[in-house]
Amino acid sequence: MNQRLWQFAGGSSGQFAVTSIRAIVGDGLPTVARLGVVNGAGTLETEPVFCLKGVTSNERYLTRSEKSELVAVQQPIGRPTALHGALIPIKKSQAWWDLPQDERRAIFEERSAHIQIGRRALPNVARRLHHCRDLGDAEPFDFLTWFDFSPADEPRFDELLAALRETEEWRYVEREVEVRVSR
Amino acid sequence: MNQRLWQFAGGSSGQFAVTSIRAIVGDGLPTVARLGVVNGAGTLETEPVFCLKGVTSNERYLTRSEKSELVAVQQPIGRPTALHGALIPIKKSQAWWDLPQDERRAIFEERSAHIQIGRRALPNVARRLHHCRDLGDAEPFDFLTWFDFSPADEPRFDELLAALRETEEWRYVEREVEVRVSR
Repeated sequence: MNQRLWQFAGGSSGQFAVTSIRAIVGDGLPTVARLGVVNGAGTLETEPVFCLKGVTSNERYLTRSEKSELVAVQQPIGRPTALHGALIPIKKSQAWWDLPQDERRAIFEERSAHIQIGRRALPNVARRLHHCRDLGDAEPFDFLTWFDFSPADEPRFDELLAALRETEEWRYVEREVEVRVSR
Repeated sequence: MNQRLWQFAGGSSGQFAVTSIRAIVGDGLPTVARLGVVNGAGTLETEPVFCLKGVTSNERYLTRSEKSELVAVQQPIGRPTALHGALIPIKKSQAWWDLPQDERRAIFEERSAHIQIGRRALPNVARRLHHCRDLGDAEPFDFLTWFDFSPADEPRFDELLAALRETEEWRYVEREVEVRVSR
């Protein structure tokens, strides 16, 4: 079992209450009451309605200076005050994946400012990115991003999502769902 | 099932005769007579002695101009004359994966000339790269590279391997095995 694997299981059990599920682009996900977040291949309490899997991995676009700047301020998932959270599953188009590395990087940061937009939400919003595209089983999404923050910081998180969705990078997003949770 | 998944199964059956297995860095692999190469999760004829899995994926380092140059000359795996081949499983160190993208790219090409070294073997040597690190099951290697070529081109392939193993990039390789095959 890959120790970097995480499962996000929607159903009737799990640590988090699901407060909303919105289809942003393309198909949504079934309505569920709870979301369980499990590290590894661990068994789930009850049969989930959906189970999304992803692995944390190495950085794909960050430069040394960008990484250093983020590492200095970012906070881990799970702070006691971070009672609200969100899971944002995303699938990008084949056109995105066919682009060479330099063109993906240019769209990602030089033209979309993905890192700088994310930077503005730090340290209040914590984030953990999971990759799904290169799992052995076909997954419905390419990325699962898991965020948490205090209820007072929810507007800051809303601004982050709105800013990213205006970018050139997001034109390559062909499916996006927003799952909001609380605990 | 991910359509980009490939399995490389060593045992007593498979399309290829194994002519040698050499441990280059770290542990080798068990001696086997045959290697089967299977797309997808398809079942194998007999229980393999080892089974390595990987997925083809998007380019991680290539620029547009480098990709265009390679695409113009590279050949597909499986040409009728390509009776010899090799599977090269590689694992890189945690230090490699901790590097930011710009530093991995600089080591990969600006300082190790990985693409240019590979370019010299084209079109004679065909190559398909598979990623293992982000599979859900823990895999013993990060990459599986599968090559084929005519018997007359084997010295050219030997030169390719020797040149890559002299590079700065290869200092981050902590396990490498060379499996040579024929059909």
